[in-house]
Amino acid sequence: MPKDMTPTPSIFERRESAARSYCRGMPAVFTSASGSELKDSEGNCYIDFLAGCSSLNYGHNDPDMKAALIDHITSDGIAHGLDLHTEAKGAFLRALEDHILAPRGMDHRVMFTGPTGANAVEAAMKIARKVTGRSNIIAFTNGFHGVTMGALAATGNSYHRGGAGMDKAGVTRLPFDGYAEGVDSAALLEQMLGDPSGGIDAPAAILLETVQGEGGLNAASPEWVRRVAALAKEHGALLIIDDIQAGIGRTGTFFSFETMDVTPDIVTMAKSLSGFGLPMAMVLVRPEHDVFGPAEHNGTFRGNTHAFVTARVAIEKFWSDGRFQRELAEKSALLRDALQKVAALVPGARLKGRGLMQGVDVGSGELAGEICGRAYQMGLVIETSGNKDQVVKVLAPLTTPAATFRKGFDILLDATRDAMAQRVTLAAE
Amino acid sequence: MPKDMTPTPSIFERRESAARSYCRGMPAVFTSASGSELKDSEGNCYIDFLAGCSSLNYGHNDPDMKAALIDHITSDGIAHGLDLHTEAKGAFLRALEDHILAPRGMDHRVMFTGPTGANAVEAAMKIARKVTGRSNIIAFTNGFHGVTMGALAATGNSYHRGGAGMDKAGVTRLPFDGYAEGVDSAALLEQMLGDPSGGIDAPAAILLETVQGEGGLNAASPEWVRRVAALAKEHGALLIIDDIQAGIGRTGTFFSFETMDVTPDIVTMAKSLSGFGLPMAMVLVRPEHDVFGPAEHNGTFRGNTHAFVTARVAIEKFWSDGRFQRELAEKSALLRDALQKVAALVPGARLKGRGLMQGVDVGSGELAGEICGRAYQMGLVIETSGNKDQVVKVLAPLTTPAATFRKGFDILLDATRDAMAQRVTLAAE
Amino acid sequence: MPKDMTPTPSIFERRESAARSYCRGMPAVFTSASGSELKDSEGNCYIDFLAGCSSLNYGHNDPDMKAALIDHITSDGIAHGLDLHTEAKGAFLRALEDHILAPRGMDHRVMFTGPTGANAVEAAMKIARKVTGRSNIIAFTNGFHGVTMGALAATGNSYHRGGAGMDKAGVTRLPFDGYAEGVDSAALLEQMLGDPSGGIDAPAAILLETVQGEGGLNAASPEWVRRVAALAKEHGALLIIDDIQAGIGRTGTFFSFETMDVTPDIVTMAKSLSGFGLPMAMVLVRPEHDVFGPAEHNGTFRGNTHAFVTARVAIEKFWSDGRFQRELAEKSALLRDALQKVAALVPGARLKGRGLMQGVDVGSGELAGEICGRAYQMGLVIETSGNKDQVVKVLAPLTTPAATFRKGFDILLDATRDAMAQRVTLAAE
Amino acid sequence: MPKDMTPTPSIFERRESAARSYCRGMPAVFTSASGSELKDSEGNCYIDFLAGCSSLNYGHNDPDMKAALIDHITSDGIAHGLDLHTEAKGAFLRALEDHILAPRGMDHRVMFTGPTGANAVEAAMKIARKVTGRSNIIAFTNGFHGVTMGALAATGNSYHRGGAGMDKAGVTRLPFDGYAEGVDSAALLEQMLGDPSGGIDAPAAILLETVQGEGGLNAASPEWVRRVAALAKEHGALLIIDDIQAGIGRTGTFFSFETMDVTPDIVTMAKSLSGFGLPMAMVLVRPEHDVFGPAEHNGTFRGNTHAFVTARVAIEKFWSDGRFQRELAEKSALLRDALQKVAALVPGARLKGRGLMQGVDVGSGELAGEICGRAYQMGLVIETSGNKDQVVKVLAPLTTPAATFRKGFDILLDATRDAMAQRVTLAAE
Repeated sequence: MPKDMTPTPSIFERRESAARSYCRGMPAVFTSASGSELKDSEGNCYIDFLAGCSSLNYGHNDPDMKAALIDHITSDGIAHGLDLHTEAKGAFLRALEDHILAPRGMDHRVMFTGPTGANAVEAAMKIARKVTGRSNIIAFTNGFHGVTMGALAATGNSYHRGGAGMDKAGVTRLPFDGYAEGVDSAALLEQMLGDPSGGIDAPAAILLETVQGEGGLNAASPEWVRRVAALAKEHGALLIIDDIQAGIGRTGTFFSFETMDVTPDIVTMAKSLSGFGLPMAMVLVRPEHDVFGPAEHNGTFRGNTHAFVTARVAIEKFWSDGRFQRELAEKSALLRDALQKVAALVPGARLKGRGLMQGVDVGSGELAGEICGRAYQMGLVIETSGNKDQVVKVLAPLTTPAATFRKGFDILLDATRDAMAQRVTLAAE
Repeated sequence: MPKDMTPTPSIFERRESAARSYCRGMPAVFTSASGSELKDSEGNCYIDFLAGCSSLNYGHNDPDMKAALIDHITSDGIAHGLDLHTEAKGAFLRALEDHILAPRGMDHRVMFTGPTGANAVEAAMKIARKVTGRSNIIAFTNGFHGVTMGALAATGNSYHRGGAGMDKAGVTRLPFDGYAEGVDSAALLEQMLGDPSGGIDAPAAILLETVQGEGGLNAASPEWVRRVAALAKEHGALLIIDDIQAGIGRTGTFFSFETMDVTPDIVTMAKSLSGFGLPMAMVLVRPEHDVFGPAEHNGTFRGNTHAFVTARVAIEKFWSDGRFQRELAEKSALLRDALQKVAALVPGARLKGRGLMQGVDVGSGELAGEICGRAYQMGLVIETSGNKDQVVKVLAPLTTPAATFRKGFDILLDATRDAMAQRVTLAAE
Repeated sequence: MPKDMTPTPSIFERRESAARSYCRGMPAVFTSASGSELKDSEGNCYIDFLAGCSSLNYGHNDPDMKAALIDHITSDGIAHGLDLHTEAKGAFLRALEDHILAPRGMDHRVMFTGPTGANAVEAAMKIARKVTGRSNIIAFTNGFHGVTMGALAATGNSYHRGGAGMDKAGVTRLPFDGYAEGVDSAALLEQMLGDPSGGIDAPAAILLETVQGEGGLNAASPEWVRRVAALAKEHGALLIIDDIQAGIGRTGTFFSFETMDVTPDIVTMAKSLSGFGLPMAMVLVRPEHDVFGPAEHNGTFRGNTHAFVTARVAIEKFWSDGRFQRELAEKSALLRDALQKVAALVPGARLKGRGLMQGVDVGSGELAGEICGRAYQMGLVIETSGNKDQVVKVLAPLTTPAATFRKGFDILLDATRDAMAQRVTLAAE
Repeated sequence: MPKDMTPTPSIFERRESAARSYCRGMPAVFTSASGSELKDSEGNCYIDFLAGCSSLNYGHNDPDMKAALIDHITSDGIAHGLDLHTEAKGAFLRALEDHILAPRGMDHRVMFTGPTGANAVEAAMKIARKVTGRSNIIAFTNGFHGVTMGALAATGNSYHRGGAGMDKAGVTRLPFDGYAEGVDSAALLEQMLGDPSGGIDAPAAILLETVQGEGGLNAASPEWVRRVAALAKEHGALLIIDDIQAGIGRTGTFFSFETMDVTPDIVTMAKSLSGFGLPMAMVLVRPEHDVFGPAEHNGTFRGNTHAFVTARVAIEKFWSDGRFQRELAEKSALLRDALQKVAALVPGARLKGRGLMQGVDVGSGELAGEICGRAYQMGLVIETSGNKDQVVKVLAPLTTPAATFRKGFDILLDATRDAMAQRVTLAAE
C-alpha cells in the first residue's frame, strides 16, 4: 500500500507545467506495470481501474505484444516511417481487414492521422466538411472529442473550452439522448433540422459517442443512435461515431455501435488501438467519402510503426475468434453486480454506462473525488467522470483476471464506505 | 538499387486512405533501417536524406537508444502513463534541465502535449491567447505549423488550408523576412501593429519558424528575429518559436534560435525530440506564462513513456558536451559545398536554408520533383519543399557518416545532371 | 380594383436588383396613401393590412405628423444633423421621457443608431458583448433580427442565412416557447446553461421577440419571458428584447413586454418609431450598460431629424393619455373575431399572435400565398409569415377605422373562400 | 459667434447614450440650416465645413429638393413603400439611368439596401461571397466601411473594432497605396495572392475607397487602383469600390473612380445620395453578379421614398450637364490653395486628399483637435480625420459659394495661427 506522504518528486514540480493533472491526486512515481497492476518507485503496488483512460484495454505490457515489439526493435525494424509503406503497416492493415472490417461487412478505408484521438477527430470533421461543402457539425451536451481547436469546438466541457482563449466555430450543440427529462432529443433534433427557420445551418456531420466516457458514462440507446443516423442521412450529413474511448472492446464488442444496426460514415479510433498504450489513431471512412488528396491532412507521426506492430498482435490475439467477446459479456455482468453494491451504499446513487465502461453516479463530485482519493490510498487507481465529476468510473483493463477484479472492487467498496461514514460524522458535528 | 516496377502492395491500395502521400513517389515497402540507411522488402538499400522530415536527426535505430528502449520494455517499464509521474519522465526532465535548459539559462517549464507537432502548436497558441486575453496571432507567409484547425489557421499552404472545408480564424498573415523584394517586413509589421487604424487586432502572439522547413528553407536573419521579438514585447504579445523542424540540432545548435540573442516566451518541439522517431512533443513556456490549469489542455498520449526513454539517451549522448555541435558545423559546411555543386548544374539555382537544413531552389517544382524522383530510383530518399515544391531539400540525419554523405551527394548530382540533360533533350525535340 | 395585367414598369425590371421582393406579387406602381389606404398610378385603391410590415402603425401620412414635418422643412429645419444636438431631437427625447419612459419607470438611456432595425440589433449585441466580455448570444428558433452579419447570426431563417455566403458566429440557437411539443424550452435552456459540460458558452445576452413577427406570429407566454429573464440575470447575461416589429402599440401596449413584469436590459426599436414610416431606430439601454464610448458605434444617419419631428408628434398624439391603448384592446378583439371567421373556412387552421399582430396559420405556404394573392387582386395588401409562409398575417395600421377594417376582412374572407373553393375543384378533377 | 459656455442641454445628458459624439465638441443645439450655414438655438451662425460628413454635398435644404419634397408630402405621396414600386422610385431610377449610368457606360443594377452606408457595404460583401463561394475579403489599412459586424471586419480602426466585443471574421488586411515607405503595396498584394503558400485565402472581393475619408484622406493613385482591379479579376475576386464618402461629386466627378479607367463590379453609395441628407443607400452591381434572390437581403426601410424624391432632383439639377463638374474643378483648386496657406503655418504639415475632399496633416491629433476646437468657437464647423486624428479635413458642401468658402478659410487660418501661437507660448513657459 502506498504511504500517505510520497516525497515530492522535485523535478516535476520544478520543470513540469502546471497543466499536469492526474499526478496531483496520484503523486507516486510509477516505474513498471504488468497486466492490471502498477508499481511505483517505493515498491508499492496498485490495481489499475483507469487503464490509461481506456488506452490499456489489454492491460500493461501484454507479453505477446511485448515480445513482438522487442523483436521488431532488435532487428532494426522501422521506427518512424512517415506514411511510407512498411511491412509492419501492411501486416496491421491485413489483420484489421481480416479480423475486424471484413467480418463486420465494413468497406471503410483507413486513414492514419497524427497518433492522438483529437487528431483523428480533427481529420473526421474536416472530411465531413470537405465532402458536404458545409461547415456546421452537430455535437451533443457532455460530448468530449479533444482539445485542439477543431475538436474542442465539439467538446462540451466549459473548462476545456475556456482554455482556447477564443471563440470556437462550426459546431451546433444539442441535447444528447436522455439529457433533459421529458425531452425526446432525437425528435427535437429532427424538428430543428427540418425547420427552414430553425436556425440550425445544414450540417456537414452529426458527431457522437455512443457512451460518453468523459461526460459521465451516458449511454445512448440503440434506437436513438439509429434515429440520429437516419436524420444525418436525410439531411445529407455524415454520421461520425467517435469510438476513441468506447471502442476496442470497451462496451463488449470491438466497435461500440456493432449491435445498433447503423453504419457510420466515419469512425474515429485511438486510445487502445495500438493495444500497448503507444500513440496511434485512425479514421475509418467510407470509400465514397475518402476525399482527402495526398497529404491534404498530414502529420509527421502518422505512421507510428512500433504501434502497428503491437496493434496487429492485439487484433490477432483477441479478435480472431469470438472468445474474447464472450469473456467481455461475463465481465460486464460482474462489473454491474459489483457496482450495484457500491451504489447501494450511497442514497440516490445510479448506475451509468455499458459493458466494461460502467460507473456509479454518486450525486456529487466532492463525494466521488473522496471515494477515488481513498481508493488510491488503498492501492486502487480509479477516476471520476461527468459534468460535475460525480461519477466513479471503472475503466479496468478488459483482460483483468477475476481475482484482481474482485480485489479492486473490495477496495472500492471500502473506500465508498469510509467516505460515507465520514460524511455522516461530519454531518453530525 | 530498387527496380523500376515494385509490385503494387495491394493492401495499401485496397484499404489505405487516398490521403497517403510519400508512398506514392516512393512505393517500396520498407522493412528495416539503421543509421542513414533504409532497406525494403526486396532487399534494396537506400540512403536517407529525408530522415522522417527531420524526425530522425540521430538516424534510424541509434544503438544506445535502442538498447535503452529494449531494456525498458523487457523490464515491464511503463508504456503508457497518462501524465502521471514516471521514472522515465523524471529522468528525461533531469537530462533536459541539466544539458539543455540550464546551460542556456532557460527557465522554461515543460508541457507535454499530445505527441505531435500540431498539438504542441495548438497548445502554444491557446496559452498565448489565455495569457493575453486576445485571439489574434500573427503568422507568416510560407509558415507551416500543422493541419489541425488551430494550427492550420497559422499555416500558409493553400492546399492544406483548403482541406479544412471551412474558414479558419484567429490569425493575421504578414510577409516573412525577405519575402517581397524591397519590403522590410519587420518595418511593415511595426507600422501596421503601431497604427491604431492599421486593422491588425492587438496580437496574442507572433509565431514563427527561424527556418521555414516546409515553406522552402527560407531562413530568417538573426536581426529580423530580434526585431520581431522586440515588437512582440512592445505590443504585449508572446513570441512563439516553432522549432519543430528546425530544432534538435538541425540548424547546428540544439535550438535554432540559440545564436540570435532572443528568449522566446514559448518554444514548440516535436519531430526529433524523442531521438528515435517515436511520437513526442513538448511546449517550453516561461514560468509566468504557464497558465493552464490541471488538464485544461490534455490528451491521452501526452506521456509517451517509450519516447521519454529514448529522448533522455539522445540528450545525454549528443548534448552533454560540445562535440556534436562542432561536428554539425563541419557537416553544414560540407553540405553547403555539395549543394553548390548541385546548384552549379542548374542555371539560376539558389542555395537556401541554414546548417544541416539546406537545399537548392531549382526554380520549378517540376524540375525539383524530377530530380528527387531520379534520386529515388538510384537509391536516395530525398524530398522537395517550398510553395511551389521548387526546392530540393536535404534533411539527412545529423549523424550521417562522411562517406554516406558523399555517396548521397553523388547520387543527387547524378540525378540533377540526368534531369537537366533530359530537359535539354526535350527542349531540342 | 386593380386590373389583372398592370403594364410592366420597365425601369424597375431594367435597373432594379433581383433582390426586390414585395413588388413581384404586388406589381402596381404606388403613388399616394392616406390612413389605411393606398393608391396606384392607375387610380386603383387598396386597403393596407401590411402597413410597411408594421412600420406604419399610425397609418400613412397622419395629418398631424405631416403638418409638423412640412412646417419643419419649410422653415429650413435641420434635415441631417449627425449626432449633434438639434431642437427636434431634444423635443423627441422629452416626449419619450415624459410619455413613455418615465410613466413606465424605465431609466433607460437612448442610443440612436443607424436608422434600421438591423443596426439597432447590431448595436445591442455589441453592447452586451462589451458589457460582459463574452461573445455568445442566445437566440431562438424562428427569430428574425435582420440580415447584416451580426444580426443575421441571430436570425433563424435559412434563406436569409444563406445569403451571407459565409459562416456566422457568436450565436447559440435554442427552441422558442412552445416550439417543440412536450419540450419545456425554458427548462431546457436552464439545464444547458447550468451544465458545466452543456457546451453552451456563457452568454453575453439572451435575445428574443415576445411575438415573432416574421417567424409566424409565435407569441411567448409572459411566464416564459419571465423565466428567461431570470435565467439571463442568473447567468450574468443581458436580456435584449427586440421590439422592432412587436413594439409601438402593435401588441396593444407601447412596448410588447409591458404587461409581463420584466425589465429588459436592452430594447431595440425601429419600424413604427418615427410614426410616419421614416427610417429611425434606437436602442434603449439601462444606464449601467451604456458602455459605448463616443462614436464607438456610429453611423452617418443616426440623427434622422425629419423622423425626430414626426416621432415626437406620434408620441404626443397617441401616448399622452390612455385613450389609444383602450382602442387597441377593442380592435384586438375585433381582429380576433374576424380571424376566427377566416380560420373557420380552413380545416385545421389555427389563430396565431397577440393584439393587433394576429394571423391564421392555414397549414401551408401555398394556400396562404394563394389567399394573399387573391386578396391583392381584390384590393387588399396583406402578406404571409412563418417558417413555411403558412400564416396569413394582419398588420393593419392601428388607426384603421372600423369600417375600413370590416371592408378588409370581407375581402380576406372572400379571398379565403375562393382559395378553398379552388382547392376543392382542383382536388375533384 | 457662439458663446463659450452654452448651457447644458439637460435632456441630452439625461437620456442620450454616452455613444453620442460630435455634440461633445460642438455642444450647440442646432435649429435650422440653409446652404453652407447652420443656426443654433441662441441665434448663432456657423459655416459648415463638415457637411454631415459628406452627406450634404449640395448643402442644407437645397430649395429645389425642398420644394419637391414638400410637394410630395403635401399630396400624400408615399412615405414608406417597402420595396414596392412607387412613382418616386421609378423617377429616381430613370434619372440615375439617364444622367449617371448610361452616360458612363455602366450596366449596373441598383439594389436599395437599408438606408445606411454600412448596410450597403454588408450587402456588397455578401454578394461577393455568394457569387464566388469564398468568404475572404481583402480590405486595407485605414479603411472605414461601417460598424455593423460584417462591415466592421473590413474597417481598420481599432477603437471601432474593439466595440464589437468579439472577433471579426472574413477579412484580410493589407497595406493601402502609399502606406509604408518603400513598399509597393500592389506588388505585395500580387505576390501574396499569387503564392500558393502565401496564406491569403482566395478572395471573394477586394474592397477599397479611392480616397480614405475617415482614414486620413489617403488618396490612391489611379495606377494603383487599376493594378488592384486587374489583380481582382485575375484571382476571380470582385472589385468593390466603397464610394460612400468619396462619391457624389466629392472628388470632382460623380463617382470617385470615373477617371481611373476601372469598372468596379460593385459600388456602394450612401451619404449624399439623397441629396438632402435623408437616409438612403444603394449598391450598384454588374448584372452578372446580381445574385440575390427576392428579399434574400432585405430591410424595412430599403425604400425611403422621401429620399427618392430629393435624390432625383439632385441628379437632374446637378448632373444633367457638365456645368457642376466644371465648378468642382475650380473649387478643388481654390481649396488646395487655401489649404497650402494653412499648411504653411505648421512646420512639416502635408496636404492630403483629392478634389473637394482635402485636408492638412498637421502631424498630431492634439494639434488638429485644437485647431478644429478654435474654429468652432469662431463659427466654423470642421472635423479631424486620420488614424491619429491628425488631419484637419475640409468637407464643405460642394455648392458653397466662393465668399462663404473664403470666410471659412479665414477662420481656419486664424484658428491655426492661434493654435500654433499657443503652442509656442506653452513651449516657452
